[in-house]
Order: sequence, then structure tokens, then C-alpha cells
Amino acid sequence: MKKVLLASTVLAMTATVAAADVTVSGSARMGVAYNSEAVNKLGFTSRVRVAFGLSGETDTGLAFGASIRADNSGAGNNGVARATPAPGTGSGDVNGAGNQAAGSVFVSGAFGKLSMGDVDGAAELVTGDLAGVGLTGLGDLNESAFLSNTDAVRRSAARYEYSTGGLTFAVSADNPQNDAAALENVYSIGVKYSVDAYAFGLGYETSDVNGVSVDHIIASGEATFSGITLKAVYGEADDFGGIAGNDFTQYGISAKYSMDALSVTAFHRVAETGVRKDKFTGIGASYALGGGASVVGGLVDVNYGLGGPVDQTRADLGLSFSF
Amino acid sequence: MKKVLLASTVLAMTATVAAADVTVSGSARMGVAYNSEAVNKLGFTSRVRVAFGLSGETDTGLAFGASIRADNSGAGNNGVARATPAPGTGSGDVNGAGNQAAGSVFVSGAFGKLSMGDVDGAAELVTGDLAGVGLTGLGDLNESAFLSNTDAVRRSAARYEYSTGGLTFAVSADNPQNDAAALENVYSIGVKYSVDAYAFGLGYETSDVNGVSVDHIIASGEATFSGITLKAVYGEADDFGGIAGNDFTQYGISAKYSMDALSVTAFHRVAETGVRKDKFTGIGASYALGGGASVVGGLVDVNYGLGGPVDQTRADLGLSFSF
Amino acid sequence: MKKVLLASTVLAMTATVAAADVTVSGSARMGVAYNSEAVNKLGFTSRVRVAFGLSGETDTGLAFGASIRADNSGAGNNGVARATPAPGTGSGDVNGAGNQAAGSVFVSGAFGKLSMGDVDGAAELVTGDLAGVGLTGLGDLNESAFLSNTDAVRRSAARYEYSTGGLTFAVSADNPQNDAAALENVYSIGVKYSVDAYAFGLGYETSDVNGVSVDHIIASGEATFSGITLKAVYGEADDFGGIAGNDFTQYGISAKYSMDALSVTAFHRVAETGVRKDKFTGIGASYALGGGASVVGGLVDVNYGLGGPVDQTRADLGLSFSF
Repeated sequence: MKKVLLASTVLAMTATVAAADVTVSGSARMGVAYNSEAVNKLGFTSRVRVAFGLSGETDTGLAFGASIRADNSGAGNNGVARATPAPGTGSGDVNGAGNQAAGSVFVSGAFGKLSMGDVDGAAELVTGDLAGVGLTGLGDLNESAFLSNTDAVRRSAARYEYSTGGLTFAVSADNPQNDAAALENVYSIGVKYSVDAYAFGLGYETSDVNGVSVDHIIASGEATFSGITLKAVYGEADDFGGIAGNDFTQYGISAKYSMDALSVTAFHRVAETGVRKDKFTGIGASYALGGGASVVGGLVDVNYGLGGPVDQTRADLGLSFSF
Repeated sequence: MKKVLLASTVLAMTATVAAADVTVSGSARMGVAYNSEAVNKLGFTSRVRVAFGLSGETDTGLAFGASIRADNSGAGNNGVARATPAPGTGSGDVNGAGNQAAGSVFVSGAFGKLSMGDVDGAAELVTGDLAGVGLTGLGDLNESAFLSNTDAVRRSAARYEYSTGGLTFAVSADNPQNDAAALENVYSIGVKYSVDAYAFGLGYETSDVNGVSVDHIIASGEATFSGITLKAVYGEADDFGGIAGNDFTQYGISAKYSMDALSVTAFHRVAETGVRKDKFTGIGASYALGGGASVVGGLVDVNYGLGGPVDQTRADLGLSFSF
Repeated sequence: MKKVLLASTVLAMTATVAAADVTVSGSARMGVAYNSEAVNKLGFTSRVRVAFGLSGETDTGLAFGASIRADNSGAGNNGVARATPAPGTGSGDVNGAGNQAAGSVFVSGAFGKLSMGDVDGAAELVTGDLAGVGLTGLGDLNESAFLSNTDAVRRSAARYEYSTGGLTFAVSADNPQNDAAALENVYSIGVKYSVDAYAFGLGYETSDVNGVSVDHIIASGEATFSGITLKAVYGEADDFGGIAGNDFTQYGISAKYSMDALSVTAFHRVAETGVRKDKFTGIGASYALGGGASVVGGLVDVNYGLGGPVDQTRADLGLSFSF
């Protein structure tokens, strides 16, 4: 996303003091979307977003910053300390704990980088997602499932990462002051190694769901050659959702080919437990028109369901803009 | 509204590449408001708004852009593709359909202009509203009623317009993936002709309300001479609200006189069905103080009601600012 | 908070016309918070905020402006005139009255300054709060209680202030078009005198709560010497909360010591009625790292309760950033 520098940058050029900066950028899209299982199969879709990037540097050279969007700025403000409970209302107060904080804040230096807010867990950071398709993401079905930083917890989450050479190491934890007693002790650790055109990631997560300990291990591999990036992921969790014996497996592969203004993407992903198997297959393309505009479209086939599989086709096509 | 150009513009001046831009502008007002029918007749009123304008240009010279305000940025983000329904929850998913999207997105070129989001229908575009009065709009009772792009539908709506010489032609449709089965097939077409100091607009709309087809035709005429702009509108709809035989007529006239810093506005508007007749009369004035500030005031008399007419007087007075 | 000037300022430098300006600034924080009475005592806390400052000047030299944040911009837009009630729905409409307006708008000149929106009452303006502690404010228990501009009323509130020499005089009123009939006629008056290193404030407020008139008088004194600022406040209200005979007393003292990058703050505050006495004691420190970053921490001891005192300890520690 193209960052638009505010004049503070210009002013800072002539100043000798360290200056904090605010940048404003935006994105928008417009098009049509199709869903084979909807009553009215074809619809319009459009969206406008404005994002703020905040950055600064301390006198000793530590970098710090934060990001938030206009649309979720309300949640971004939620990590505020709660008022002391009225007399007699007792211990319900969780005191300064994040309350579904959106956006994120970080500080970084030679020690690494510490981030808080709505930050991905360590396992998600190092393995990432398969390449996605479509103007709207079409349900983001290329994305892996993780235990960390889900909407079920009270954010903010925290993550520390350290990179040296091609190696990245990360640990993360969800907010221990989580209101949802059903979900506790969410921790993750991950390591990533990148060399030339290859990257490998390995992550581990654990959480307590209704008192049942759930573990998740996930690995990814990525290779880029001749304009093509191939990626594969494989993950396994036991007692998924806190249900004893409910083992969960997810795996998939994606390919992205870029040449000049064109990029073509495809993915196939499977998520299964003992009683069901969901399959997602997507293909899409994007063509850059210059100036931040692209024509983007995609198609996803979804095959899922408990009582016999349901087949759903989703597709979209339109223009994507970044400002 | 005065647009404030961010430094990206300044930076772009020295760059040779096409650049996307973000502008931030604002408006505010403060004053008092009166309502003859309220328990406490006199009150304070104030408001602050921040608006974002996003614009860019493709390599081939297509212009594109979007606009959103900080206060409705949450809705502006709503045109997102919805998640795939969980297995077994069936076909309720409408997939990428706008969800009361605020703001709008457009692309334009020699082919005309295509807009999506919270965009007025074609009939509203070409006929517009009578001139309004007051610091707060005083209920915006100068505005005509339309079938297109109402809050009852799932936005985004879409509109195409093409202008050549003094002629503007427009067509529009509400989102066909509308959740409200009570309101379907909302389409509109309009044409406008402007020549010298005159403008004429003619629009037609249709929608299905609970299965009853409702049609609306509306015309407007405008003339400007000696600093005075006169405008008249007349519209007729049959089976209004989906009620068979409930014919609806709206008509009105407005005058706006501008001289130097002063402008004075008046309107009279009638909206009637077989069983009731609502009359709205307004008068107001604005005096520019320079720098984006104005003193603005207005008074509206409202006469409406089913069981005998109710007379209501509303008025306001205060300062209006644009930044 | 550091203001980031947009390029309009730069452009205005070369222009001869008065220009309105928009500035964007931000703040963020990240850290940990502790509450001795919570189930999970230690938690993460983070927050990101973006603020907009709007300013301009009329041709005759009146200054005007407004401020709002991204996160409460929705409420900032709420001072809009309400729609005329549908026929038969009667007099409930309060017409243009502020509806919990956030942000504020002002105009100022030789006559003084008039502000509207979410503005502190006159008594709060002249007496202020004791110095606070902590990254998150830890419940803002250093803050005095006031009758004006509470969340129970329909904003906007209005305040006028005039300063000459070291003397400031202020009057304020809550919105008379308040929906909450339980709270009416909220007025305040205050005077402040500052000379050299001393400041004294005296404020009076009155409101009708469920028809019972409540009066509040509050005084403050402040002295700065050798890098230390001492402040004391004392306030008394009778029939607090509209309960006859329920006299309320609040008093406290704070000290803030600043030397180079370090500042240390402590406060003690008591709020009591005939049946209870709540005591709040806080200590905190802040160390500036340059560039808008600080390390900030605090600890508050809360002793309160009807049926025997409850002791609660709250603390936090982390990084605070301004952009």
C-alpha cells in the first residue's frame, strides 16, 4: 500500500530534532460478487478504507510506531484502563487489559521487536498463509487456522521477534487477563529460515479451551523460481476446540505467477477432523493498470459440510485501488 | 468544502510517476436550535466532521477515486466479502454484497463514470433537491423522496453516468443481493440538460416492495438570473410503499439569492398521498466571514399529520466552518 | 501532543488568502497492567489513537477551530438535527440538539472564547484535576467529580471564557434540550487567578436531579517551586445524586516533580458521603526517551466500599508514544 507522507516529513528535513510522523493512506475496491448458494446469486461489492501509520525514533535510536485504520479506530482505542468497579461490584474489573484492541503498537531496536495489539501469534508470523485470490478475498479460505489472537480473547496480544541473518525467531502470548474463562494460556513460538529463493517456517501453539489443553504444530515451505512462488503448509492440532479426541489437520498448497503487470494465483486447502473434511480451491488473477489501480478477479470452490458435502462456488471481479 | 492537500502532492510535483493522493478536510458547526414541539424548545447543537478524499490515475489516463468520512468509516469498510457460512448454516450467505457501505468509489474516463457505494440513484442525480436552509439542515425537508439507495437496502448501489455537451445521462441499480426481500429490483434512469443559465432534469425509478411494483417519475427545472437561482421539482409515484392505490405526489419550489458574502434561501415543498398532505416551508440565510467561516440560520414551518394537521416550527442559528 | 502540520500549511505560506488547516497527530501506548482484585491479576494493555485538529481564521481575525479523534468521530458527528418525527409520533423530537457529541468546536477573539461540544464545565476548567499517574491513568482516580457535562446529558455543552492579565472567568451550561428529564438546569461558573508560580481556582455548579437542586462548590490552589508543582483541591456538594441530606465532600493533594527527562508524581484523594469514605492514593513516574517516547508507570491504592472497605491495588508499566 502506497504511503502518503504528510508535511511533517518535509518540515523534519530542515529540523535537527528527531520527529514523529503520521502518514495517511487508503484503499478502495468496486466490483461484482457471485455466490452459487445465495438467494440472489450476483451482487455489488465496494469498500473504502483509510489507514494511519505512526512512526518515530527515540534519542538512542529505538524505532517505535503504531498503525490503525479509520474504520476500526474505535477498537484501537479500547486498550484503555477500565474504571474502578463501583463499591460492591467486586472483582470483575480487569484493569487496563486490552478490550479487543485493533491496530498495533511496536518498539524495535538491536534487541529485536516487541509488538502489542491485534498481532498475529508467533506460529502465524513464521508460516503465513497460502496465496489468496479475488477482489474481496472470497472468504479468505486460503488462510490457515490458528489458536493465537482469535476474536474469542480480549486483546491486546503481545509478540516478540528477533531476526539475524536469514533466521527469525518469535514468541507470543494472548492477553492473560482474558475475560473468556473458556480460553486461557494461549502461547506460541515460531522459527523461520529464509535463504535465497527459499523459506521454511515452523510454529507451535498451545491454549486451554474449557480446561482442555489444545496443541497445534504447523510448518510451511516456500520456493520462488522463474516468476513462480510455490508455498505449502501442513498443520495438526489435537483435541481441537477443546473436544477430547477431535484431531484436526489442515494442509494446502498455493502457486503465484507474476509477469510484468499480470499475476495469476491458485490454491488448494483442506481442513479436516474425524467427522468432516472441508476442501477449498481457488484461482484468481490481477492486472496492474498503474497508479495504484488493478483489475482483480477470483473464483473459489468450497466443498464442506457435516451431513454430506455442500458445493459452493464464489467468484468476484472488479477494480482495486490503493492511494 | 475546502480540500487540504497532503504533502504527497508536493512530493509528486517533483516525481515523474503517476501518484495516488489522499486529502483530508473537515467541517464543523456550533449554535442553537429551536423546536416548537419539543419539551425543552431551545437546545445547543454542535458537530465536527473529518473527510478523506482519495484520488489517482492509471497509466492510460483513467481517473479513479473514493471518499469516506472518519465518522462513517466503519460502514465504508462494510462492503467486504462475508465469510463462508459454517457447515449446515445453509444459503444465507450473500457473498461480497455490500453491507450498508458508506462512502463511494468511482472510475471515470472517456466512457463516462461508474460509481459504487452510497451513491444517489440516477433520478436523484439529475433532479437534485430544492435549496435547503439552516445551520443543521433543519430536518432536510427540502429533499425529495426517492426509491433508490434507501437505507432499507444492502448497499453498495451502482450508478453509471455519461456527459456530453450540456447533456448528462445516468442509469443506476441498487444491490441485487439485497437481504431485504421486501425491497427488490430497484432501478433508475435519468437525463439532465444544462444550457447557459437553465437546467432540466427528468428521472424514472422502479422497485418491487413486497412484490408490488412501484414506479416514480420526477422532473426538475432550474434557472439562474440576477444572482437568483429558482428551482422547481414535481414527482409522482403510484402504489407508494407497496400499498396498492396509494398514489404519492411531491412538488416544490426554491429560490436562492446570492450577493457578495450574503445568500438568502427559501423553499416550499408538498408531499401528499390520498389520506394526508404534508407541507414544508423554509427560509434561511448565510453570511460568509471569510476563511471558511459563515453565520448561518434558518426557520422551517412543518405542517403534517394524519389525524388533523400538526404545526411545528423549527429554527437554528450559529456558525459553520469548513477546513 | 505533537501536532503534525499538513501541507496546506506549506501551501498557505505562499498564499495571500486566509487558509483553514487540518492537522493529524497520534498517540499510542503498550505495556502491562495489574489489578489485585481481578481473577487474572496481570494483563497486557495497548492503545492507538489518531486525532484531528481543525483551525482557521475569519477575514476580521476571529480564530475558529475544532478537534475530534478518529475513534470517537461517530459521536462527533452526532450533533446533527434530528429528522422531523413521523406524523403522530408527537413531541419527542428534540431538533438539532447534540446527541452525546464528542470533540469540540470553538470561536475566539477579543470578546473571549466560546466552545461547544464535549467541553468541561466552568468549575472543572478553573480548578482542573490533581496530577495523575500511570501509563493508562489507572482509573483516573485523581480526577474530581463534577456536575457539568456528564455522560448522563445530551451534549453538546457550551462554555464561554474570558481571560485578562492573570484572571480567567468562565460560565457554562449543559444542553437545555437534554433528553434525561432526571437531570436539568446544569450551570456552572468559575474564576481562576494565576500569578508567577501560583494559581487559584474557584468554581460553582448547580443542577436539578429528579427535581432536587444540587449545588457544588470547589476550590483549588497550585504552587510551583524548585521543579515541584503542588496542587490541592477541596469541594463540597449537598444532596449529591439528588438524595436529600446526602452531603458529598472531595479533597486531595498532588505533587509533581520534573527534572530533565524524569518526572515523578504522587496524589492522595478522598471522596466521602455520610455513609462511605473512598480513599485513592497514587504514585508514578515518567522518563522521556526523546522523539515523543516515554517509559511510564504508576501504582494506585484504592480503599472504598459500603459494607466495609475493600482494598485494591492497581499498577501499570510500559511505553507511551506521541506522534
